[in-house]
Amino acid sequence: MLKVGIMGASGFAGEELIKILLGHPEVKITALAAKIEKMHVSKMYPWAKAMLDLDCFDMSAEDVAKISDAVFLALPHKISMDFAPALLKKGKKVIDLSADFRIKDKSVYEKWYEIKHECPEYLKKAVYGLPELYRKDIKAADLIANPGCYPTSIILGCAPLLKKKIVDTDCIICDSKSGVSGAGRTPTQALMFTEVVTNSFRPYKVNFHRHMPEIDQELSSLAGAKIEVNFIPHLVPMERGILSTIYLKLNKKINTKEALSMYKDFYKGEYFVRVLDEGILPDTKNVVRSNFCDIGIKAFPGKSLVVVMTAIDNLVKGASGQAVQNMNIMYGFNEKLGL
Amino acid sequence: MLKVGIMGASGFAGEELIKILLGHPEVKITALAAKIEKMHVSKMYPWAKAMLDLDCFDMSAEDVAKISDAVFLALPHKISMDFAPALLKKGKKVIDLSADFRIKDKSVYEKWYEIKHECPEYLKKAVYGLPELYRKDIKAADLIANPGCYPTSIILGCAPLLKKKIVDTDCIICDSKSGVSGAGRTPTQALMFTEVVTNSFRPYKVNFHRHMPEIDQELSSLAGAKIEVNFIPHLVPMERGILSTIYLKLNKKINTKEALSMYKDFYKGEYFVRVLDEGILPDTKNVVRSNFCDIGIKAFPGKSLVVVMTAIDNLVKGASGQAVQNMNIMYGFNEKLGL
Amino acid sequence: MLKVGIMGASGFAGEELIKILLGHPEVKITALAAKIEKMHVSKMYPWAKAMLDLDCFDMSAEDVAKISDAVFLALPHKISMDFAPALLKKGKKVIDLSADFRIKDKSVYEKWYEIKHECPEYLKKAVYGLPELYRKDIKAADLIANPGCYPTSIILGCAPLLKKKIVDTDCIICDSKSGVSGAGRTPTQALMFTEVVTNSFRPYKVNFHRHMPEIDQELSSLAGAKIEVNFIPHLVPMERGILSTIYLKLNKKINTKEALSMYKDFYKGEYFVRVLDEGILPDTKNVVRSNFCDIGIKAFPGKSLVVVMTAIDNLVKGASGQAVQNMNIMYGFNEKLGL
Amino acid sequence: MLKVGIMGASGFAGEELIKILLGHPEVKITALAAKIEKMHVSKMYPWAKAMLDLDCFDMSAEDVAKISDAVFLALPHKISMDFAPALLKKGKKVIDLSADFRIKDKSVYEKWYEIKHECPEYLKKAVYGLPELYRKDIKAADLIANPGCYPTSIILGCAPLLKKKIVDTDCIICDSKSGVSGAGRTPTQALMFTEVVTNSFRPYKVNFHRHMPEIDQELSSLAGAKIEVNFIPHLVPMERGILSTIYLKLNKKINTKEALSMYKDFYKGEYFVRVLDEGILPDTKNVVRSNFCDIGIKAFPGKSLVVVMTAIDNLVKGASGQAVQNMNIMYGFNEKLGL
Repeated sequence: MLKVGIMGASGFAGEELIKILLGHPEVKITALAAKIEKMHVSKMYPWAKAMLDLDCFDMSAEDVAKISDAVFLALPHKISMDFAPALLKKGKKVIDLSADFRIKDKSVYEKWYEIKHECPEYLKKAVYGLPELYRKDIKAADLIANPGCYPTSIILGCAPLLKKKIVDTDCIICDSKSGVSGAGRTPTQALMFTEVVTNSFRPYKVNFHRHMPEIDQELSSLAGAKIEVNFIPHLVPMERGILSTIYLKLNKKINTKEALSMYKDFYKGEYFVRVLDEGILPDTKNVVRSNFCDIGIKAFPGKSLVVVMTAIDNLVKGASGQAVQNMNIMYGFNEKLGL
Repeated sequence: MLKVGIMGASGFAGEELIKILLGHPEVKITALAAKIEKMHVSKMYPWAKAMLDLDCFDMSAEDVAKISDAVFLALPHKISMDFAPALLKKGKKVIDLSADFRIKDKSVYEKWYEIKHECPEYLKKAVYGLPELYRKDIKAADLIANPGCYPTSIILGCAPLLKKKIVDTDCIICDSKSGVSGAGRTPTQALMFTEVVTNSFRPYKVNFHRHMPEIDQELSSLAGAKIEVNFIPHLVPMERGILSTIYLKLNKKINTKEALSMYKDFYKGEYFVRVLDEGILPDTKNVVRSNFCDIGIKAFPGKSLVVVMTAIDNLVKGASGQAVQNMNIMYGFNEKLGL
Repeated sequence: MLKVGIMGASGFAGEELIKILLGHPEVKITALAAKIEKMHVSKMYPWAKAMLDLDCFDMSAEDVAKISDAVFLALPHKISMDFAPALLKKGKKVIDLSADFRIKDKSVYEKWYEIKHECPEYLKKAVYGLPELYRKDIKAADLIANPGCYPTSIILGCAPLLKKKIVDTDCIICDSKSGVSGAGRTPTQALMFTEVVTNSFRPYKVNFHRHMPEIDQELSSLAGAKIEVNFIPHLVPMERGILSTIYLKLNKKINTKEALSMYKDFYKGEYFVRVLDEGILPDTKNVVRSNFCDIGIKAFPGKSLVVVMTAIDNLVKGASGQAVQNMNIMYGFNEKLGL
Repeated sequence: MLKVGIMGASGFAGEELIKILLGHPEVKITALAAKIEKMHVSKMYPWAKAMLDLDCFDMSAEDVAKISDAVFLALPHKISMDFAPALLKKGKKVIDLSADFRIKDKSVYEKWYEIKHECPEYLKKAVYGLPELYRKDIKAADLIANPGCYPTSIILGCAPLLKKKIVDTDCIICDSKSGVSGAGRTPTQALMFTEVVTNSFRPYKVNFHRHMPEIDQELSSLAGAKIEVNFIPHLVPMERGILSTIYLKLNKKINTKEALSMYKDFYKGEYFVRVLDEGILPDTKNVVRSNFCDIGIKAFPGKSLVVVMTAIDNLVKGASGQAVQNMNIMYGFNEKLGL
């Protein structure tokens, strides 16, 4: 049994990791760390009563390292880079769900996150944990930069066409919609039940969301050209799920059938990416609480426009599920195990 | 036009007062006070843009008194009793939505609210603002103690049978269910969207909710006997609405038809209390955003048991709507005006 | 008092008309027609008990005409054109909420709605009831074609820039999101509570929604050029509200401030269109149950791209509220009356 | 691998069975039957794409029997009794989720369900599938009458005190609240998203719900005395979950600590029943999508009253999860397998 520690167990991604890993047959959760008063996990998460007998408290990276083989960092950015080096030095494998190791260019990171990067020497070693693109590197990695939720939904949606070099890279529009858990667990008035449930659908951070440099980096790498997306996120009054509607201008006329065939080819053998048949559109509810990414496509050849619609669960394929998928790859488990 | 001030404009009851009073043809809102940085009402409530041009800021009772004829106190308990005397001394009429003047017995108040009452001399002058029971006193009052939301739903549900003295007063069970706005606007983790929307229905404060002394006081007064209810409140994952299911053991066998006829008699001429026909049950959605209280009844004569089900909007008949109804009575307006 | 009949009282738009008109001081509802068994309005809508004393039943246009001055047709397309002529011949003013008189070109209507138009002679007489664009014609009209919900949100969002002729008319993308009431009241499995509430956000009818010819017609007229929009509607798991995120490529570089100033100019004096200040974005919850259309704008001059975000209540400004606004204009009432 | 067939795969309980059984390591789903046009399971349930490759169609009991060892009947009452005998005659084990074999007294069944029982000879053989009470019988059974959702929540809540014979059996009040999936999947207007999401909390079928004879039968058996409960169900605007608030008058004064200790004793060793510590109350969200039943207790010794609050997921412990728990017991699997 692989001994696994979770640092940041009190956030949504941490909670989701506990849920997933409790059902993983090759894993035993051995450490739960969070910046809270020591409490039993069943007090923090009453649903876990009788399922897990462990205290959660403010542990150092060293203490977690002592009792774990692999460590998930479900921490806010900036905190992750404080913990990761110590864990790596102890020979532990680290899967970091924050943004700290996702951006290869230190200066881009520092500009968008408005802090100094404490350990830029790890940026090169870190592997961007999107298995469908980087499986081979993940297998060999010690440090995984687990992708952001929006980036996962957008990169998987764009990859096949970008790789074909038939996209007008000047004009990519990503109109994304996320459930409220994407905003995290810190209580604010805007995220209270009574504020959201009252028919509140709204855009936010139009073209200045911190997931943008990550999206740009990966799309540029796929296209072999510098891309700056237009990214317009919205909040949906539901718990979880992301649907991204992506508008791609092509430099070539293709119809829906042709586009779908490119996607089916590209994702052949990928269990967790489901390219939907013509006429079928994704719905976040079909992927919620699963690690799937559903992709639907509609092309307007007359306008050289393709609309790609992708759906994921922001907390699963967009965070903790993908992290476990990465762990499975790193340790040679069946990639679907526990998912 | 009656000049009206609202102290506590940043809470749910304050916001609801603004909404209602903006549609009241005889009223002009002249003051909005709250313990916040000065800001335009349209910043605090974007829905109000173009509808009301007023700043909201931290005003003293004296400042509010200068520009208002009547003042609503939509404040937490304890704060209200700091403000009310100053307003009354300036000759203003005060409608207090807190609990500070509802409990006639100072020691009961002090026990349940765990603070000293600062101005007990007003307890006698204050009129309990339930128009269906105290309309005549309200008309003459300067200080209204506007009822709590749960008490409104329970007192209106029990009054006709208690008045008839046919209830076993030892064994009244009030199983009440409230929308989340009843818990107020202060952000806490338990009230976040993501915590509530995930199928969260739960009891809380079983038999120690602060609305209990108020319910006991009014039911005892109706029955002419000391009553201690069993009060079990629950939170429903919806914005607003209270449904109380009240179980009354009778010392007499009556059927549903007889019970309904007592209720229809008792509430004859009361526009805001709707006694539903046999076989029709209340639904919170039918009273939401209205000042109605819907009452449905089912009797089990074989068991001498009557189930009374009442539905109100906790923010309207349970708070701000009833406050405006009281204002209408105090100023001789049509009681339905603006409601 | 204007005597008003509502045909199609059992649908969402009909119900919303009743709610709005009950609060209108110059109007008396005199007829409620629907293809149902005769029943009292309080049986159909329990919220209306004590508020309106009228039966609803299957009435002919002639019967409605006898007791009404103005008639709202809140009917499905095809049915409206069966009723409107009879009402107009009796000298009644008709406000039609269906699509039957919105499309000026009979053949376009017949293609999209897949039926023969029964009375094309009225297409020219009908005035498209968007007051912010056609107020003068509305004042003189007998037959109003009340705009669709999506079209209202998109046309108001595009009008100022299209009028300036600075939009690349080849590439307008409208990514719209609607609450579920937009799908109507007929029970289907896809619209059940349990299907929608489970985190269901989804696109539908990508580029073949029936509101498209209406949008194209009005945008083309504004631009003075043939426009075919790309229209991608989505369903949001909430009751009501539409947010349209509109992407406009410009043939000129303008910044957010300049764009906002064009919009504020264009909508100067329009009470129901609120152009939000820089940095403020619309939220459907701020317009729900009101007749406002909120517009937020963000420009990316480097890319000649402008993102316009508009929010309305699909049942109010997108249907019944706008219908009442039209009625107010037709009868010379204050345009805001009852709204 | 146990080959398992599901008849009634298109309802909520059938869908939940598929979800659970897909994660069960000892089971293979071999048949999906429903009264629908033949379609692939991924068309009926898009979430199942890539997870299960099976068609669902209108199969006879015989056809299902040919390819299955055990059969779940997730059918409406009346239909189940048409299928069960044929399956049993073929030597299959049957777990029936309908009410057809729950009521031991044929005449009581026929009165409440208003039909003739077609195979009363099986009523005696059928075992009421509540493992915490009847585990030994379940182990040996061929036909399980899987309990109803409300009965599960109420019987588990009452059993310990009833067994102790300290309850006044004349006056048991069960105030239950259920998520909307409890009402089934047939589309009706009352169950549409737009009807429910608008703050709709309501009682229904007050004291004439069909789960009553089942509750009475089991409570009477526990108490050794004829019990007729007062059962007042309510609909909560959420997908799933039942919370029952049960009021028990005792003939003995006990405090909360004593009551809790009785419950902890009674349920010792039962993994799926979690008796909560003093001061902790159940919340449906803690049991949703799990097979747990959480029980919280508060006693008022001064009034000889105990309030028992139980929470389950109506589709899991209240239906499909309990059915799988029964299957695990019948086949000697670990009782928690797949749950």
